[in-house]
Amino acid sequence: MAYDALAHRDTPLSDDALNQLFTGARTRNAWTDRPVSGDMLRRLYDLTKFGPTAVNATPARFVFVTSPEAKARLAPLMSEANRAKTLQAPVNVIIGQDIEFHEHLPVLFPHAPGAKDWFADETHRRENAFRNASLQGGYFLLAARALGLDVGPMSGFDPEGVKNAFFAGTTVEPNFIVNLGYGTDENLFPRSPRLAFEEAARIL
Amino acid sequence: MAYDALAHRDTPLSDDALNQLFTGARTRNAWTDRPVSGDMLRRLYDLTKFGPTAVNATPARFVFVTSPEAKARLAPLMSEANRAKTLQAPVNVIIGQDIEFHEHLPVLFPHAPGAKDWFADETHRRENAFRNASLQGGYFLLAARALGLDVGPMSGFDPEGVKNAFFAGTTVEPNFIVNLGYGTDENLFPRSPRLAFEEAARIL
Repeated sequence: MAYDALAHRDTPLSDDALNQLFTGARTRNAWTDRPVSGDMLRRLYDLTKFGPTAVNATPARFVFVTSPEAKARLAPLMSEANRAKTLQAPVNVIIGQDIEFHEHLPVLFPHAPGAKDWFADETHRRENAFRNASLQGGYFLLAARALGLDVGPMSGFDPEGVKNAFFAGTTVEPNFIVNLGYGTDENLFPRSPRLAFEEAARIL
Repeated sequence: MAYDALAHRDTPLSDDALNQLFTGARTRNAWTDRPVSGDMLRRLYDLTKFGPTAVNATPARFVFVTSPEAKARLAPLMSEANRAKTLQAPVNVIIGQDIEFHEHLPVLFPHAPGAKDWFADETHRRENAFRNASLQGGYFLLAARALGLDVGPMSGFDPEGVKNAFFAGTTVEPNFIVNLGYGTDENLFPRSPRLAFEEAARIL
């Protein structure tokens, strides 16, 4: 189909919006006391869920840790360098993947009734869950910024401990953890270098 | 720090922008003939590269397949259902991860000179590369939409074949492949259901 026959959908976002999402956004290591409401967490999920995943499986699962009791369970499981900021952030989000995500495919991918059977092999299923929940993690982080929130993603924690404390008796495994709220400039690293296009990409 | 002391950074993007990124965006299965310039691919990389990754390692690598010769190498490696749309899309992007990403940490994470040694174990390194390159895949897909492009991500291809055809002799392994361009509504699936908040998330 010729492009000119289509309604236009090709407008880039404004520079301000690109700045908020990418170029000016920074990983935050310190947090104000401004809370994040449950309504905001639902808005955040309702954006994140629309990001594309293989066979629409959306394997990511989210635990929003907000109460002092839940934060007291999480903090000792974080690596020491992550502990203070995890306690300070108003919300900590444990992003995990459901290894048995394929059980939902009859609902989530209705036009291919046999889709569940494509994931009978556990190794293949785990790889798929990890890839797509991580993709959804990327959507989540940018959706948070799109809503005016700041994020601080972290991999430094005890995965077995987090599994036992927050996903015991389930088929969900932790992937990474995000501090969420309204950040400050305290303990902000200088912006680190990035690879040049030629170091990370090729055009063939 | 009290929130009110800060310059405001908490403005959500407009509903139009959220629509373009999330709520109204669709995975495209057919493509117009409008090309995507090399300049646009560089702009896309220059947004994607700023997304956060563990120790700023940015392990994702991108091969933009645009020429008829390169597309002819890729198409037979796609699963049959993905072949025609891969040939039709103006650009196919092979997103991979560099398993030896830690070699770049002295440059990319300069404030922790020993960071490279944190990734001496290959299993740990592979998991980290896969997680963070997938996260960057999420940033890439949303950066493309932010620039007004459409995307069609795919996992159905021969990974060994793609490794051999596009990453032979390197430490990069393919993760997933994205059709990129300006999509049409042909072969558009109806929007599939998503899990309700309560099915995918908990607030503790």
